[in-house]
Amino acid sequence: MGRTIVMDEDRLFPSDRTERGIARRLYAEVKDLPIVSPHGHTDPRWYADNAAFPNPAELFLIPDHYLFRMLHSQGVPLEKLGIPRVDGGPVETDPRKIWRLFADHYHLFRGTPSRMWLEHVFFFLFGIDQRLAPANADEIYDRLAATLLKPEFRPRALFDRFNIEALATTDSPLDSLEQHRKIAASGWKGKVIPAFRPDPVVDPDFPGFAQNVARLGELTGKDTNLWEGYLAALADRRRFFKELGCTSTDHGHPSAATADLTASACRTLFAKALQGGLSAGEAELFRGQMVTEMVRMSLDDGLVIQIHPGAFRNHNEALFRRFGRDKGADIPVRTEYTQALKPLLDRFGNEPDLTVVLFTLDETAYSRELAPLAGHYPILKLGPSWWFFDSPEGMLRYKRLVMETAGFANTVGFNDDTRAFLSIPARHDMARRIDCAFLAELVASHRLDEDEAADLAADLANRLAKGAYKL
Amino acid sequence: MGRTIVMDEDRLFPSDRTERGIARRLYAEVKDLPIVSPHGHTDPRWYADNAAFPNPAELFLIPDHYLFRMLHSQGVPLEKLGIPRVDGGPVETDPRKIWRLFADHYHLFRGTPSRMWLEHVFFFLFGIDQRLAPANADEIYDRLAATLLKPEFRPRALFDRFNIEALATTDSPLDSLEQHRKIAASGWKGKVIPAFRPDPVVDPDFPGFAQNVARLGELTGKDTNLWEGYLAALADRRRFFKELGCTSTDHGHPSAATADLTASACRTLFAKALQGGLSAGEAELFRGQMVTEMVRMSLDDGLVIQIHPGAFRNHNEALFRRFGRDKGADIPVRTEYTQALKPLLDRFGNEPDLTVVLFTLDETAYSRELAPLAGHYPILKLGPSWWFFDSPEGMLRYKRLVMETAGFANTVGFNDDTRAFLSIPARHDMARRIDCAFLAELVASHRLDEDEAADLAADLANRLAKGAYKL
Amino acid sequence: MGRTIVMDEDRLFPSDRTERGIARRLYAEVKDLPIVSPHGHTDPRWYADNAAFPNPAELFLIPDHYLFRMLHSQGVPLEKLGIPRVDGGPVETDPRKIWRLFADHYHLFRGTPSRMWLEHVFFFLFGIDQRLAPANADEIYDRLAATLLKPEFRPRALFDRFNIEALATTDSPLDSLEQHRKIAASGWKGKVIPAFRPDPVVDPDFPGFAQNVARLGELTGKDTNLWEGYLAALADRRRFFKELGCTSTDHGHPSAATADLTASACRTLFAKALQGGLSAGEAELFRGQMVTEMVRMSLDDGLVIQIHPGAFRNHNEALFRRFGRDKGADIPVRTEYTQALKPLLDRFGNEPDLTVVLFTLDETAYSRELAPLAGHYPILKLGPSWWFFDSPEGMLRYKRLVMETAGFANTVGFNDDTRAFLSIPARHDMARRIDCAFLAELVASHRLDEDEAADLAADLANRLAKGAYKL
Repeated sequence: MGRTIVMDEDRLFPSDRTERGIARRLYAEVKDLPIVSPHGHTDPRWYADNAAFPNPAELFLIPDHYLFRMLHSQGVPLEKLGIPRVDGGPVETDPRKIWRLFADHYHLFRGTPSRMWLEHVFFFLFGIDQRLAPANADEIYDRLAATLLKPEFRPRALFDRFNIEALATTDSPLDSLEQHRKIAASGWKGKVIPAFRPDPVVDPDFPGFAQNVARLGELTGKDTNLWEGYLAALADRRRFFKELGCTSTDHGHPSAATADLTASACRTLFAKALQGGLSAGEAELFRGQMVTEMVRMSLDDGLVIQIHPGAFRNHNEALFRRFGRDKGADIPVRTEYTQALKPLLDRFGNEPDLTVVLFTLDETAYSRELAPLAGHYPILKLGPSWWFFDSPEGMLRYKRLVMETAGFANTVGFNDDTRAFLSIPARHDMARRIDCAFLAELVASHRLDEDEAADLAADLANRLAKGAYKL
Repeated sequence: MGRTIVMDEDRLFPSDRTERGIARRLYAEVKDLPIVSPHGHTDPRWYADNAAFPNPAELFLIPDHYLFRMLHSQGVPLEKLGIPRVDGGPVETDPRKIWRLFADHYHLFRGTPSRMWLEHVFFFLFGIDQRLAPANADEIYDRLAATLLKPEFRPRALFDRFNIEALATTDSPLDSLEQHRKIAASGWKGKVIPAFRPDPVVDPDFPGFAQNVARLGELTGKDTNLWEGYLAALADRRRFFKELGCTSTDHGHPSAATADLTASACRTLFAKALQGGLSAGEAELFRGQMVTEMVRMSLDDGLVIQIHPGAFRNHNEALFRRFGRDKGADIPVRTEYTQALKPLLDRFGNEPDLTVVLFTLDETAYSRELAPLAGHYPILKLGPSWWFFDSPEGMLRYKRLVMETAGFANTVGFNDDTRAFLSIPARHDMARRIDCAFLAELVASHRLDEDEAADLAADLANRLAKGAYKL
Repeated sequence: MGRTIVMDEDRLFPSDRTERGIARRLYAEVKDLPIVSPHGHTDPRWYADNAAFPNPAELFLIPDHYLFRMLHSQGVPLEKLGIPRVDGGPVETDPRKIWRLFADHYHLFRGTPSRMWLEHVFFFLFGIDQRLAPANADEIYDRLAATLLKPEFRPRALFDRFNIEALATTDSPLDSLEQHRKIAASGWKGKVIPAFRPDPVVDPDFPGFAQNVARLGELTGKDTNLWEGYLAALADRRRFFKELGCTSTDHGHPSAATADLTASACRTLFAKALQGGLSAGEAELFRGQMVTEMVRMSLDDGLVIQIHPGAFRNHNEALFRRFGRDKGADIPVRTEYTQALKPLLDRFGNEPDLTVVLFTLDETAYSRELAPLAGHYPILKLGPSWWFFDSPEGMLRYKRLVMETAGFANTVGFNDDTRAFLSIPARHDMARRIDCAFLAELVASHRLDEDEAADLAADLANRLAKGAYKL
């Protein structure tokens, strides 16, 4: 017999009575605003095909590195969780057994955002009010599995029910965007747009870089063996993405380095990159130059640039060889912005109509570098607290460290940044509640009037994202 | 019709009833203590001439880079705000138009300390109880402008009304201190003293360094072409400053680097510096050596040394070329203290009668380096939370990160560090309220008794600054 | 007449009524759980000899660098506090005079954990309810001194009274563990075990490294002139420690660097280390290799590895020459983990049965590196907030920064890490109260259910330490 899940109306609000009262009032005004999701990793195929989601293990656990990294940290082999091996070797295939193993370890998630998102989904979407535990694992599995077969649990129906105003996926420049075209052609009104993630063709350390660049040439008919042709091909793909609604690009580089080299230096570097001969420093320089090039192209096409730096990707070598990328083994590193962004800012920092959204996995940069930069440069805005910091404590730290210096208007509201489609409302709800909790603190200590707080709550919930990402 | 400004009696206090009650009682005991302002950037000419302040735009906005950086960040050209151009080119000159533009963007300051200081000034000094907005911009402008003409709004009258016990300006060693002499000769009792900021003559990267050093020679009759003459000239100027009440010097270097070189190495480095031939590393070494030299001179004259490191000055190249220094484009960088200060500390760290006050723009150093250093070395004390961190959240973070390790006695109370004279009471009031809020947390959780908290509140409000700065 | 000490029942709990109520209930369930102390620096001789503790100055002040560093920072010479000089020169020897000097400066400790621990000891152990002050210094001294002579204040009686389930000391591999053998042979049931701190024989910069290694050879009968013999000797000593109950080793290196070199490279480096010819970088490499070797040996003997990096030891050169090591002059430095640990993790990171406990003096690593690492790698767990951060604010920061990402199960509960035996219950009580305060915040904001919080409170108070350290 499991414990009851209680989705308290005041969850995530401050405990202090005065602050809680304010938070409640603010939240009441924003809780039903449409969801804007300008950055995320859901699969466009879901909306294109509108097929039923598979079983609970495949839907909730296998794609979610937040969940299985925690089980791995406690010694559960990924094979037993059904994570596919690179070599195609045997892994657990019975979703019910995987689900039971997850239930056995469910206590590990106490106090984590994953747990809060998951229970929000269980409770509000599936009507489950029992805390997952070994004893009720099968019962909950059955309930989830049965519900997922219903027509109102198809992706498009959920998208509409979630009241999503716009949602961006993240796509390779080499992607045909076939799924997005299929969605556009379907007559369904849901706004699902691509985002341009050029890493495969702008990061010389990306697996298959040279082949990717060659493929870029084929797709665009440009000679991507030459620097000028390569740039033209990128601009071309951006136009193609834009035709399907794209409003932003994104960089997932190891650092925030930017560069502003001469065309001649770029040509030399690019030629060497294609030959695979770059040193680590040169690869960094090339990536930095490509950020600047992407921003330059935005002068023409208006795409918003996102920079997501600071992850040491695939840190666990053995796991990477066995299971591949994105297996919960990306570890943050210190990230510098003040010096790193200077080449870019010297060239474009004061452009009034460009937007570069900065993210970080190094929270020390919030108050030291990012808020002062965003509070000065017209081109810069700060993305929300990201990844590990998309959590109640992380979001509060972000707001307390950023807002006094950057001001709310130099931030871009919330990103759910998720591949877990069902959790999108849970994540936005958490963010809105924390926004209201933070604003309630300001109001209760008379740092802000409540009418202003209400206005800012709506900004944070919806309007800032729409504005910054041109949605 | 504007919203009403409410200066709530409990502003900035914790919302919790128990804590708020304690904070109220503590604040009642310190709110009327005289203001001690040992570090700031007001213009001594104001107190010397005692002329009326100009119009609201020139008084509040044009000199305040906290304010115009935020407007710039949202795309407002500095020309439209009347910021003078280096080339003397045209900028807006109608203060009322500038004021209206400010009012149009006043919402950007929600939740910022600038907003809180400004409304404190409007409300308590000018009796304005309407929130600035486009609709009342003219009305508020007129009220401010008219009031500024009154005799009781002259600098000296305000200084007396503000109950300022002592106030330091910040001055170049090349300054004649004519204004300070004029104040001294005037018979007015206000204590306005200079502080010795030697950057123009000790930082080889300062514009005009060699000419500045030559000028230093002229002023003192020493041969500043030679290392020994240069040091003698600096000591001479310190004496001159001290005669006019100066008790402190200040360094605004990029890092906290110190050095302790041989005299021979110093001579070589200095000669090269005068020729403009130092590498970046050598310039850093020279600045580091000069910090140590300044501390050494304090063995003789007793001046307190301040180190304000960690700003990447004039980060925005285009803005710097167009508008010059101090235009809201100084961006913090990571700052290291443990290794950087070792040469200085090896030489003077245990001197019982010297004081070096450390500041930082890198909050990560508070608990990791600064509090442990100040909690050990007799020579070291910690300055208050500085610049971007002179804010409610910034001050709370500082206290929570510093006090358990450094102890209150190794800190120096509050600095307003402002060029906005009218905001001085607002800034000290904010600091005192946050002190009391922090102390109330300690009392409410029984980490401190209330009689001790009251004693510490008075220390923080007044006595620590007086003691540390010898005022 | 002194002020009364009030040991409020709700000390360290949140002031908010709801949160306080929850904290009270949680605390009631854990306050009497046995103390597990897996890492500390008490002297095994105390438990072996079971002699009375000396006078108050020698017991409380002279060994406690937390206390005398603060007095030193305010200009009190260590000689006056009776700290022994390296050269045997004269220092104050009258414990009563030392105690009075301490009482004169007792106000310096306001708001510090030292003050809270001390008053807990005074109040609960000695029945003193007056705040120490110059006026009552003698009276309190007399009371302490008289009480220390009572049989129930002997080390073993206190150990039993403190309800200590297990306590580890920290010992050199060259130690004969004579005291531990004496304890084992005594028939007393107290579980006092050694911990293996190999720094003297694995850190080439440790004073007397080569002699220490030679001594290691003598003790074990291995040829420690050769790399293989050296490793065998270390394994041998680990076995010897393990026979006396040891379950863990510990490294106090300047950084978290690890290495995984070839045997041939190890041989060369080791030979050079014995000759004293390593560069700074090579010494770092050698220490890093030795961490990896220690972990490798744990595959055989199961000892838990602790890494305590990031202290710049003996930063105050003059003080070090005069008074020696551990005089409150260790200052933290920035510490990197993501890259530093990779060689170790590439080799052993996924071993399910090994445990490496990571500590830090750089709080910025909590959320950026340590929590993500511990939340992924089976081998890694996070030690509690350490040293300067073993404090109410420090522990709260730790929990807020770590738990959402690492999860509670990847942490190891509390370490008192103290040489102040009498303060052990005070330190564990502070930790348990802060645990409950933190958990109460989560419960009050509905991020955790109270039954789960109660379970976690018991984990944090006792079970996590027992499990992680195999006690």
